[in-house]
Amino acid sequence: MTHESPAPNSQPTMNRSAPVTASTVLELEQPLPLDCGQALVGARIAYETYGTLNGDRSNAVLICHATTGDQHVASPHPITGKPGWWDRTVGPGLPIDTDRFYVVCPNVLGSCMGTSGPSSPAPDGQPYAMRFPVITIRDMVRAHMALLDALGVEKLHSVVGGSMGGMQALSLAAHWPTRVERVLAIAATGEMPAQNIAFQEVGRQAVMADPNWQEGAYYGTGKSPDAGLAVARMAAHITYLSEATLSEKFGRRLQDRESKSFGFDADFQVESYLRYQGSAFTERFDANSYLYITRAMSYFDLADECGGQLADAFKASKARFCLVSFDTDWLYPTAESRKLAHALNAAGAPVSFVELSAPFGHDSFLLDVPELDRVIAGFLSK
Amino acid sequence: MTHESPAPNSQPTMNRSAPVTASTVLELEQPLPLDCGQALVGARIAYETYGTLNGDRSNAVLICHATTGDQHVASPHPITGKPGWWDRTVGPGLPIDTDRFYVVCPNVLGSCMGTSGPSSPAPDGQPYAMRFPVITIRDMVRAHMALLDALGVEKLHSVVGGSMGGMQALSLAAHWPTRVERVLAIAATGEMPAQNIAFQEVGRQAVMADPNWQEGAYYGTGKSPDAGLAVARMAAHITYLSEATLSEKFGRRLQDRESKSFGFDADFQVESYLRYQGSAFTERFDANSYLYITRAMSYFDLADECGGQLADAFKASKARFCLVSFDTDWLYPTAESRKLAHALNAAGAPVSFVELSAPFGHDSFLLDVPELDRVIAGFLSK
Repeated sequence: MTHESPAPNSQPTMNRSAPVTASTVLELEQPLPLDCGQALVGARIAYETYGTLNGDRSNAVLICHATTGDQHVASPHPITGKPGWWDRTVGPGLPIDTDRFYVVCPNVLGSCMGTSGPSSPAPDGQPYAMRFPVITIRDMVRAHMALLDALGVEKLHSVVGGSMGGMQALSLAAHWPTRVERVLAIAATGEMPAQNIAFQEVGRQAVMADPNWQEGAYYGTGKSPDAGLAVARMAAHITYLSEATLSEKFGRRLQDRESKSFGFDADFQVESYLRYQGSAFTERFDANSYLYITRAMSYFDLADECGGQLADAFKASKARFCLVSFDTDWLYPTAESRKLAHALNAAGAPVSFVELSAPFGHDSFLLDVPELDRVIAGFLSK
Repeated sequence: MTHESPAPNSQPTMNRSAPVTASTVLELEQPLPLDCGQALVGARIAYETYGTLNGDRSNAVLICHATTGDQHVASPHPITGKPGWWDRTVGPGLPIDTDRFYVVCPNVLGSCMGTSGPSSPAPDGQPYAMRFPVITIRDMVRAHMALLDALGVEKLHSVVGGSMGGMQALSLAAHWPTRVERVLAIAATGEMPAQNIAFQEVGRQAVMADPNWQEGAYYGTGKSPDAGLAVARMAAHITYLSEATLSEKFGRRLQDRESKSFGFDADFQVESYLRYQGSAFTERFDANSYLYITRAMSYFDLADECGGQLADAFKASKARFCLVSFDTDWLYPTAESRKLAHALNAAGAPVSFVELSAPFGHDSFLLDVPELDRVIAGFLSK
């Protein structure tokens, strides 16, 4: 396998004036086996690291990102220029202290920030598009493990993730039980619930209903399914927030006007906000990646992968677990973490489980929740 | 004004092999004034009646339908052939007893089942499309009142509605306080909350993102925004159900297959169900009507209409009120009904308020909830 650093994260066929990311990219020499039965040849894994691996290689923390996140956990996003998505959590002296830990954050398989995904070139030089194999959360973790092999990390101090990142953390603990000592899964689930599968399906249908999607073969055509992807993002974005956040942040306030327009403009602030969120998302994310990653999430079912009982997923693990949920998160509610806690208890695994009070809904794991900082710092220090 | 009965509910420009409804249609001779400042000339109101108006005209019950409902409250739907949407509640010996009451159910303004809406012909003979004025819940009730005038009903025994139907009931009580004795609002709100405005906006954006929408001028073009409307319906449909219903009804069960397809078919039953719901909806509903009716809902704000305080909306009312919410309804949760109850208390109005336990989420008002039957029958009999 080869490392390139810094490598342009070329997305030659995406319709954007693409800035490049300076993330390091690992190209796997061996085909990466996948749950679907195929193997991915020439898979690339883009990642960021922070801090230094210590002499006995015992201080590596793997951070797994959420659905539309990326490897820029604590460094500016190369397209938007915004700070890293967990800038407030990862860094010197922060809860995941890069003075102490060697932090690795890879872009997940199927994504569009340098790791292989549907927008990447297939062996024939053309973008995979829908020829990219359908991947799973475990496949994402397989890629992470290949990266850790390449980095010389045999055993992780910890794996940490929120939302889909938490699912990767749990998948790692279940399927590579000897390779991690601490597992911190925030606002996650062990089995994707039906309501979430439903919302994920709506997002995919919104993309696929856009004629510019062109059965996924939109790369290089000058057209991309931005309208459909924006609708998908708008719907998903509502699910990331709490009703209370929406009421407090926007309520029924009008946007730049004194009275209703009696038309179909974005009269309300919340409408304007959502339209912006939808539109901005299309600037930084590939529509096919959205299909593949939401598909991986809907397929996620640790119990099914491990013989039918969630507890069996953790039988072989020697790790300590910490589960965090948020009281206003209705997308991955506390009940999901509680199910995980019960399964871990049944498996005899050491687990602490805390529901935090935070007003921001599912997005709480990304936002200013000081108690979460304390939980993270405390769990990693023990 | 003229009555036609039975009248074909002509939707000459919609892309369906349109069965006709035999609903009675009232054509208003006077222009119907609207909140936007315009007046609708030649407005038509399609409606159904059940039972007989008694000699002193004291037994009329107005039933107001929800967003995508219609006048076929207890008679088969002319397009789908399905039973009336409240067939289990309205009829001889049922909670709204048509042996006793004269039930009137009009199709709302802006809809597509015979009442004037964007698919109706404008005075120039062409469909209004987006030239149809943006309407409000109060405008819908204005049309209802014109219908009641024509039917010789000065004072309603009751007005009853769930969801958007409940909002019409509350609007009637607020703006026509002398014309109703009992107001039963189920799973409703007095002010559309931000989260609901957000979901409504997603639905509209899904329709308007469909190139077949053609700025609303799709009538007669042979193309209509079915794909966008289906996505809108899918997203909305999730919000009508509870997480528990989705989990119990579908869980993670696969649809007509033994294992995951590793593709983008509807692998899961919940995906297949949603796709069906989305597609079936486009057979019976006009996309522009969906835009107009959701717009009316997002504009709904009784407090704002009545000087800023919700209590002021009910100051002039002499009616008795009954509010019902459901414990699993997260779209119009109990907190919304509680706000209404507080406002009614502050206005000195007699109000009973009950939260019922039912597993079906917002849709509970349409489904088998025996306790709701008892509440309705009890409230109307007092």
